[in-house]
Amino acid sequence: MHKKIIIALCGVVYFISFVIQAQVVEDFKPSTVNQLGKLYPQVNSEGIVRVRIDAPHAHKVQLDIGGIKYDLRKDSNGTWIGESAPQDEGFHYYQLNIDGASVPDPGTIYFYGAGRWGSGIEIPAHDQEIYALKDVPHGMVSEVMYFSKITQAWRRCYVYTPPGYEENQNIRYPVLYLQHGSFEDESGWSRQGKANLILDNLIAENKAVPMIIVMDNGYAFKPQEPQVVTNPTRPAMVFEDVMIQEIIPMIDKRFRTIADREHRAIAGLSMGANQTMRIIMNNLNVFSAYGGFSGTSNYPSSDEIDPATFLDGKFSSGKEVNQKIKVFFLSLGTKEPNPFLGSVGAFRKMLEKQGIKYTFYESPGTAHEWQTWRRSLYQFAQLIFKK
Amino acid sequence: MHKKIIIALCGVVYFISFVIQAQVVEDFKPSTVNQLGKLYPQVNSEGIVRVRIDAPHAHKVQLDIGGIKYDLRKDSNGTWIGESAPQDEGFHYYQLNIDGASVPDPGTIYFYGAGRWGSGIEIPAHDQEIYALKDVPHGMVSEVMYFSKITQAWRRCYVYTPPGYEENQNIRYPVLYLQHGSFEDESGWSRQGKANLILDNLIAENKAVPMIIVMDNGYAFKPQEPQVVTNPTRPAMVFEDVMIQEIIPMIDKRFRTIADREHRAIAGLSMGANQTMRIIMNNLNVFSAYGGFSGTSNYPSSDEIDPATFLDGKFSSGKEVNQKIKVFFLSLGTKEPNPFLGSVGAFRKMLEKQGIKYTFYESPGTAHEWQTWRRSLYQFAQLIFKK
Repeated sequence: MHKKIIIALCGVVYFISFVIQAQVVEDFKPSTVNQLGKLYPQVNSEGIVRVRIDAPHAHKVQLDIGGIKYDLRKDSNGTWIGESAPQDEGFHYYQLNIDGASVPDPGTIYFYGAGRWGSGIEIPAHDQEIYALKDVPHGMVSEVMYFSKITQAWRRCYVYTPPGYEENQNIRYPVLYLQHGSFEDESGWSRQGKANLILDNLIAENKAVPMIIVMDNGYAFKPQEPQVVTNPTRPAMVFEDVMIQEIIPMIDKRFRTIADREHRAIAGLSMGANQTMRIIMNNLNVFSAYGGFSGTSNYPSSDEIDPATFLDGKFSSGKEVNQKIKVFFLSLGTKEPNPFLGSVGAFRKMLEKQGIKYTFYESPGTAHEWQTWRRSLYQFAQLIFKK
Repeated sequence: MHKKIIIALCGVVYFISFVIQAQVVEDFKPSTVNQLGKLYPQVNSEGIVRVRIDAPHAHKVQLDIGGIKYDLRKDSNGTWIGESAPQDEGFHYYQLNIDGASVPDPGTIYFYGAGRWGSGIEIPAHDQEIYALKDVPHGMVSEVMYFSKITQAWRRCYVYTPPGYEENQNIRYPVLYLQHGSFEDESGWSRQGKANLILDNLIAENKAVPMIIVMDNGYAFKPQEPQVVTNPTRPAMVFEDVMIQEIIPMIDKRFRTIADREHRAIAGLSMGANQTMRIIMNNLNVFSAYGGFSGTSNYPSSDEIDPATFLDGKFSSGKEVNQKIKVFFLSLGTKEPNPFLGSVGAFRKMLEKQGIKYTFYESPGTAHEWQTWRRSLYQFAQLIFKK
């Protein structure tokens, strides 16, 4: 009797899984960030990710995406295949798990996030035209190595120069300093963020001013300090010093910048939003525009902010902030959870109480991920350096 | 009796493996191309590679390097660890095999080679100073996207501009077009080849003339052709047309080049040596220097070359070749096997028979791998664009 119930239950489970499988729309296409010639991973019109890997001797293979592990199925040739639940549109990090080993999927190109170089996938987005590679003039992304005296280490930044930069040798450009999030690095904004393509497209449509974008690494430690991050959102770091004393002078020397506060903006995502808010508020003589994508410096607190004490009272005079900061931009994805929702919300209340003008953008249907930040840059870049 | 022999043999095998392990010098250090903070893979002073990966449920994990698969050992925590035989100094591609799945090692950064983005390792070399990141002025490596009308596709090249390029806006520079090998791409020369660091160091020591280096992708197909390579060494491709009609004009427009044959060199490794030899011999009005690293256009044949027919008789007049090509450079690693050894040897015999002057460089103790090509570039770059 007991055995019969188990068999019946197995039958039900099998039937349910069959129905689930049958419901998957079979219009899968290779992801746009696959390696040359690789057919998998694939994505269908519902945003379901299907992965495939040969692992003939494995007994369990999983797809690990969005914090959930999905079991794959093994066929008679030893190839494992399986699907995720539908994913939000845009870019996601993921990995495979083969008999307990977490490894990159050999089908994709690799991205730095979650503290590692690993796989990524693109779920086609309704607004993917904003970062599509189009037949418009293209800027360049250059890798610049520099030695930091403060950290006593070689550091790297990527610099986007707009279309025409090399040919128009008499033109000088404004600069946006654009920072990544925690456990990411200086490669994020051009690889998964597509900052260069977003700007190429905006400039081609005359929606943004041609600008230089500097993408550096937000992690910076004094040589005698432990080179690890104890709290990724508020690391005890010297990045502000490196930015002000080393990066900006180096960029102003090496590139044709307009080297004044009116022509410098600073923005960042998540940890980068937190960091860059502190940097601009401490250096209002250096920058005149701020973008905080999915983050503010009161993170992770949702408590009411006292402007008299918050960031040493830098927001205590709303009038002064309005005079100094020409663009104050904040954004969030509509699916972002706490503490992002709560802390940005508390920060906005403080701004409103202080009468500080700001632009708030909400990315529809996206969480704390790159599609939110691509859209945020698309919005922010249209506001800055305008007369 | 039979059983006793087996037990005795097992004992001998166990003893031998114990001795082999015991002989490994325990001075392993993390590889210099590991991901930030990753302790493994490691390399010891003998060039032995030790890898480690957590795979608690796997029953077989192997290190796959240099064409040999080495079994790893599992400890009680489910961590696998093991070593290769000693490897040649320099850079090598490798991968892990977990229960039959070939995957990148999550400990390393990734490189494009063998037709995939995968793991790499650096075995410290006696001459690694030539490509070390030193306190000298550094050039930049820029990613340039361009649309090719011939292939009807977006293509990418990396462009090295020497130290001072951005600041010295009145100076124009000679250009080296530098090509990768089969199943590699435009990223190879700057990532694993370290072309930028080699030139930064040579320029700092006044051993090479400041020059621009253009690193493009040697695979180029007409849109109606299959986009696959049937024979990687002599692909039926249109790369020569793309180089002459599209890449060079684009570079001459976008960068401050000296746009004449005296100030253009072309070189490549393996398949790239083969391709670029054809390109220079068909376009002696475009280039004046050639570097063939581990490859020639008679590959893979070791047969005697008839200059009257080889490459449509382009070598039939040794005098004309000597007049047109100011630097004719060939190289090989001393450990390179056939067909490289034989085909380059046959080619050299033909050059000597024709009285064509050339420089031949042998990389000591290296095979058909990147250390040979780093050294080849180091030698070649010192010869070109000199008065």
